[in-house]
Amino acid sequence: MPFVRTRVEIEGHVSYITTEIPEVEAPHWGPDQKFNVVGQRLPRIDGHNRVTGRATYSVDYKFPGLLTCKVLRSPYPHARIMDIDTSAAEKVPGVLGILTHKNMDMRFSAMQRVFEPVVRYVGDEVAAVAAEDEFAARDALDLIKVTYEPLPFVLDPLEALKAGAPKVHPDGNLTGGKPRVLGRGDVQKGLAEADTVVELTMTVPVQTHCCMEPHGCTVKWDGDELTSYESTQTVYLVQRALASAFNLPRNKVRVIMQYVGGGFGSKTGMDKHSLIAGELARRTARPVRLHADRWEEVTVKGHRPLTVQKVKIGAKKDGTLTAIHLVAYIQAGAYATGPSNPGGVFREMYACPNVRTEEHGVRVNIHSTRAMRGPGNVEGMAALELAIDQLGYKLGMDPMEIRRKNYTPYGDQAANIPYTSKGLLEAYDMGAKAIDWTKNRHKQPGSDPGPVKRGIGMGSLIWSGGGGPPSGANVVLDMDGTVTVQSAFNELGEGPKTIAAMVCAEELGVPYESVKVYCGDTQGLPIDQASYGSRVTPSLMPAIRNAALDARRKVLQAAAAFMDLKEEDLVLEKGVIGVKGNAAKNMTLQKLMSSLTHVITGTGFRGPNPSTHRINVFGAQFCEVEVDTRTGQVKILRFVAAHDCGRAINPMLVESQIYSGLYQGIGYVMTEERVYDRNSGVNLSSNYVDYKLPTSLDSPSLTPMIVPQVDMFSNNTGTKGMAEPPCIPTAPAVLNAVYNATGIMFTEFPLTPARVLKALQEKRA
Amino acid sequence: MPFVRTRVEIEGHVSYITTEIPEVEAPHWGPDQKFNVVGQRLPRIDGHNRVTGRATYSVDYKFPGLLTCKVLRSPYPHARIMDIDTSAAEKVPGVLGILTHKNMDMRFSAMQRVFEPVVRYVGDEVAAVAAEDEFAARDALDLIKVTYEPLPFVLDPLEALKAGAPKVHPDGNLTGGKPRVLGRGDVQKGLAEADTVVELTMTVPVQTHCCMEPHGCTVKWDGDELTSYESTQTVYLVQRALASAFNLPRNKVRVIMQYVGGGFGSKTGMDKHSLIAGELARRTARPVRLHADRWEEVTVKGHRPLTVQKVKIGAKKDGTLTAIHLVAYIQAGAYATGPSNPGGVFREMYACPNVRTEEHGVRVNIHSTRAMRGPGNVEGMAALELAIDQLGYKLGMDPMEIRRKNYTPYGDQAANIPYTSKGLLEAYDMGAKAIDWTKNRHKQPGSDPGPVKRGIGMGSLIWSGGGGPPSGANVVLDMDGTVTVQSAFNELGEGPKTIAAMVCAEELGVPYESVKVYCGDTQGLPIDQASYGSRVTPSLMPAIRNAALDARRKVLQAAAAFMDLKEEDLVLEKGVIGVKGNAAKNMTLQKLMSSLTHVITGTGFRGPNPSTHRINVFGAQFCEVEVDTRTGQVKILRFVAAHDCGRAINPMLVESQIYSGLYQGIGYVMTEERVYDRNSGVNLSSNYVDYKLPTSLDSPSLTPMIVPQVDMFSNNTGTKGMAEPPCIPTAPAVLNAVYNATGIMFTEFPLTPARVLKALQEKRA
Repeated sequence: MPFVRTRVEIEGHVSYITTEIPEVEAPHWGPDQKFNVVGQRLPRIDGHNRVTGRATYSVDYKFPGLLTCKVLRSPYPHARIMDIDTSAAEKVPGVLGILTHKNMDMRFSAMQRVFEPVVRYVGDEVAAVAAEDEFAARDALDLIKVTYEPLPFVLDPLEALKAGAPKVHPDGNLTGGKPRVLGRGDVQKGLAEADTVVELTMTVPVQTHCCMEPHGCTVKWDGDELTSYESTQTVYLVQRALASAFNLPRNKVRVIMQYVGGGFGSKTGMDKHSLIAGELARRTARPVRLHADRWEEVTVKGHRPLTVQKVKIGAKKDGTLTAIHLVAYIQAGAYATGPSNPGGVFREMYACPNVRTEEHGVRVNIHSTRAMRGPGNVEGMAALELAIDQLGYKLGMDPMEIRRKNYTPYGDQAANIPYTSKGLLEAYDMGAKAIDWTKNRHKQPGSDPGPVKRGIGMGSLIWSGGGGPPSGANVVLDMDGTVTVQSAFNELGEGPKTIAAMVCAEELGVPYESVKVYCGDTQGLPIDQASYGSRVTPSLMPAIRNAALDARRKVLQAAAAFMDLKEEDLVLEKGVIGVKGNAAKNMTLQKLMSSLTHVITGTGFRGPNPSTHRINVFGAQFCEVEVDTRTGQVKILRFVAAHDCGRAINPMLVESQIYSGLYQGIGYVMTEERVYDRNSGVNLSSNYVDYKLPTSLDSPSLTPMIVPQVDMFSNNTGTKGMAEPPCIPTAPAVLNAVYNATGIMFTEFPLTPARVLKALQEKRA
Repeated sequence: MPFVRTRVEIEGHVSYITTEIPEVEAPHWGPDQKFNVVGQRLPRIDGHNRVTGRATYSVDYKFPGLLTCKVLRSPYPHARIMDIDTSAAEKVPGVLGILTHKNMDMRFSAMQRVFEPVVRYVGDEVAAVAAEDEFAARDALDLIKVTYEPLPFVLDPLEALKAGAPKVHPDGNLTGGKPRVLGRGDVQKGLAEADTVVELTMTVPVQTHCCMEPHGCTVKWDGDELTSYESTQTVYLVQRALASAFNLPRNKVRVIMQYVGGGFGSKTGMDKHSLIAGELARRTARPVRLHADRWEEVTVKGHRPLTVQKVKIGAKKDGTLTAIHLVAYIQAGAYATGPSNPGGVFREMYACPNVRTEEHGVRVNIHSTRAMRGPGNVEGMAALELAIDQLGYKLGMDPMEIRRKNYTPYGDQAANIPYTSKGLLEAYDMGAKAIDWTKNRHKQPGSDPGPVKRGIGMGSLIWSGGGGPPSGANVVLDMDGTVTVQSAFNELGEGPKTIAAMVCAEELGVPYESVKVYCGDTQGLPIDQASYGSRVTPSLMPAIRNAALDARRKVLQAAAAFMDLKEEDLVLEKGVIGVKGNAAKNMTLQKLMSSLTHVITGTGFRGPNPSTHRINVFGAQFCEVEVDTRTGQVKILRFVAAHDCGRAINPMLVESQIYSGLYQGIGYVMTEERVYDRNSGVNLSSNYVDYKLPTSLDSPSLTPMIVPQVDMFSNNTGTKGMAEPPCIPTAPAVLNAVYNATGIMFTEFPLTPARVLKALQEKRA
């Protein structure tokens, strides 16, 4: 039976899915597998197009009659729209369509229409104009007269939960009306049993995705069929949401994304822009483009939430954890439907019988958060790893030692379900050796005499990067022997096109150079769910292997018919059909293919994950810092990042992920911060001057390391996902290093000189 | 073994192909098959887009920076280019690229480069200009100075074969250096055994395809990848030829055709325009469009050849044929590589032991011919059916009787290989009844007293419309239950998209309205060879059935898993999964699909044709005419067209083919004629005023009829191809009716009043 019905329980919610079991399943590539292509450090297959400007982004699709759309946004954090007068705007030459809540009643989500008569954050959509060019559109925006009745607003998540706080929605500010409580055992009992308890409150700041390519789309109707060229991570999710919103069958909606300039989670699912552009295109019968400007990109296209985390961790004298307790308040935004998941790492990272996490998703008058690289885990780990270090110091233990003490092989500690693999001990060893942990660490934090104090610190990571279905691929062999891999996956720049070609070449037995990859199109390509959750490598590569194996099987069948030999006497390697024991009869794949009546197509997809194991990704980062106690300047000297991601198909691309994660983590802890004006709700850091991203000039020495371990159970390629993990342990590694240097525990960051100097002064006082 | 190697012998040339045998093969739809969708008279699925201007043709693809290309063409029928000076043209503002034989050395075919230093017909390519707009391009063409040395030329095929005739190419004017001779038995012996011999020389004129949409393409490079939006019948053939010409792997060339405005054979394979536009796009790094204007379209984009046919047919007194002899001279054009095939019908139409056809392909100084709807058979049948009627009159037999007398069930008379089906007797019966043959026919031709003389006549047809591999299709079921059929076939307006949706809906068991069809794109779609040879219906529909069956099998497997029932207890019909014997448990397909993790894809393709049979299409047309002996005006009063095409998937579309074939046949025999000026080689009928296409105002009463017969061996749908057949018997039916009315045998046409009046005067004289 190639289909199976599975019960799925996600945090208490039960559903059933029906999954296809692949008929062709390539055998696992074990540690001793010999490769021709896999494992090589090949450059990105599309790198040349990207760096020479040939790559085609959403905004590059031009059509005759293309209109430009611009959006009028609320200047108030909370207000009722008493009146909108678009009459003057309509008269601007070149203006063809204007949408407001008065003439467009389409739902964006269960909570929200595209335009609401109440605006709930600065930047909320009020109206949209489509015009012949951007100038006319902006002129028209200026002429739309909106009469607002300002309403009370709230920005701070803790204040928002107080009695009498302004209500963002009538049903209150706590999403779901209660916190999400998860855990195991009895945390009060665990705390009572502890010899030592660490307690701290960590407030992690907003971090913004800062995509180089702003969010947007170019939309085109052909009769009753809709095509959108999107800047997205998820062509299929956008396609389905568009079909639903416009009440179209899915086969009449096509979403295309060939290149995207950054996503980091913020381009997951459909954005409002697609509905606005789609509706204006429908009404004007013209193609319409709508792309965010930089202010919009930084303010209303999502961010990692400010999260207040109250942590209590108890342990026995020997370091054995007895209880972990988290109460988190997440500044989730105006239309949030639930909390993010900072508690995940508290439940999963360490062996502990008593764990309780209480996560409050709090609605406030800012734009809602969106998943950002390692969502939840980045925020949670900053608090957890700081607390673990503190516990170590309190018990007089090496922070490394307390982590090893509470190491667990179980992905589900309640049910004793093991991980498919866990290379974290190896990562600890590799990283500690590279940073020379024992020599460089101050046993007594802050004992460096200064005035420039040096210290080292570390952080761990866990991430759920196992992927899973649905992922499908076709491998098409043309009659000249060239190959195309087809799958609707989304290449975000992280390299799946490159490794897709590598895996296909390897499994099929053809030169890497003969393989082309076509993706990012919902028309005609096998589905790949989405590019999120670090799922693409472990989801798609098994599907490609299966498709390539299916194609290879057909090639050998065709060769057997052509050569009048038996299939089992033939092999395909490097584009040559080899005859076992009779190399003189070898023939090229090209020759065989030119005798065929048509292309050979192999199909493959990803089967379900094993139910006997949990798949997670691990790693540890170590850093060395200098703190100038005279200026408050923190300087990161070097980072060592040791990661377990199973097999690295292309080590250079894994390292590339590590570099980019380190940069994003360093920006998070050191420089990036969104500040809202308390009086107006305005984002004061809505540009790249005020919102400080690190540049290459800010880079310390970075040493990426890959734990040389093949996962034996994750999937047939032995891989695990490696997109999000590298930014998870970065912040706590820096915070712990700064503590090691100064003896000051920072529970707020970024570590600006002002903040550090203030803390140094307070410590001295 | 799903692949098989087959020996292919085409007219003496042996080759081997390796063909895949479908793993899923839908059972034959027999005469008693019950249908939900097949057999209905549904309108074209894309009709609305076509008639509302939404259809996107090659010229509708606009890109930023798009250049327009125009071609300089030879004013001489034969000349050597002594010099080309493009310096003045290069200075025209907006001109970006100019190609001539001096700077472009690309081959178009084995015989021919894109630009040659010798021009061989009026309209031959001399230079091409790409410019910002058409005006600049045309201005530049005017400024290119070409110095020609005129050479002797020849237009007439018989003169071209005489000693001392001007040579179009150094190796002479007869293609291959000898005629193609085919046949069986001993034709001299057969003629000697005959009691009666008919001898005539028929000269059929040039007919032009006259596509509403001119030939052309819009070409775009992305890095080293080439995309061409072509006006073509054969996306795959163009893709492969482009890859070869530009030395690219096939997976880096994409050809797209969503709509085409007429082809009729003239848009088969790659045209020179694709190479010119492609090369200019490469050199200028800009997209380039190149589309023929009306003069070019009518003069240098192909035509049906003028053919001189010397016919001898011998028969016994009882009408039994003893010999058929054809010597044909085909005005094949400057770069012809072989003769067309007017002899096919002489060899195949009637039972005869002794047949010999000698076909001379003759090179002359006009543009080469291209296959035109029913190529060879249209020309041949005009001569054969006239001769058969004459033989009947000579023997005192009813023309219908002599045809029935020489009826054959064998597709290969030498090897006694039968047809899969032959509904010609039924077509004779149906047509004769509808036209009231016995009552309306003058037994004595010309016996109508006039002055307006009435008569009736008929013609038969044979065509090789069995199709065959390669044809592939995917049937993709989305998670909302909507369906997409995917195949790279070429929809020319004849309706394959419509019947593809019908066949898919029928076999899969879903509503017709839920099916979309995507075709005409070499990227990512299963191959379909081409739209020629009336092959699409009998090639593609079996592939779609197989793909839909594969998808249905997977749906029922998934439903069995979902419902915890056995697959064999379930059926899928009209979008509902039915539980046998327990209708209360029925569920919608949509509900099942929404529980799946991904789409269901069925794949299917067309297996090889049976080797035990020949597949041919048959039919007969009957018409009634009036000849005004005072004016020479011939008026067709009515046409009855009875056709055997196996099962009609959509009878309305079959009738639509019959109508269009009749119009093209009527134009051929009545009004269309290309005239070359003997002194200059110039086409004097290069526009729609001088080249007279019939319009709806010229239409007689037309009665299409379909022989109700399902082919039991052709393929699993019981269909045969019906695109070309309807124009094959039209001309001889009119010629025979005019003979019946006047007693004058016309061996030249079109039957213009001048020609008819001259013949009437000669007869009186």
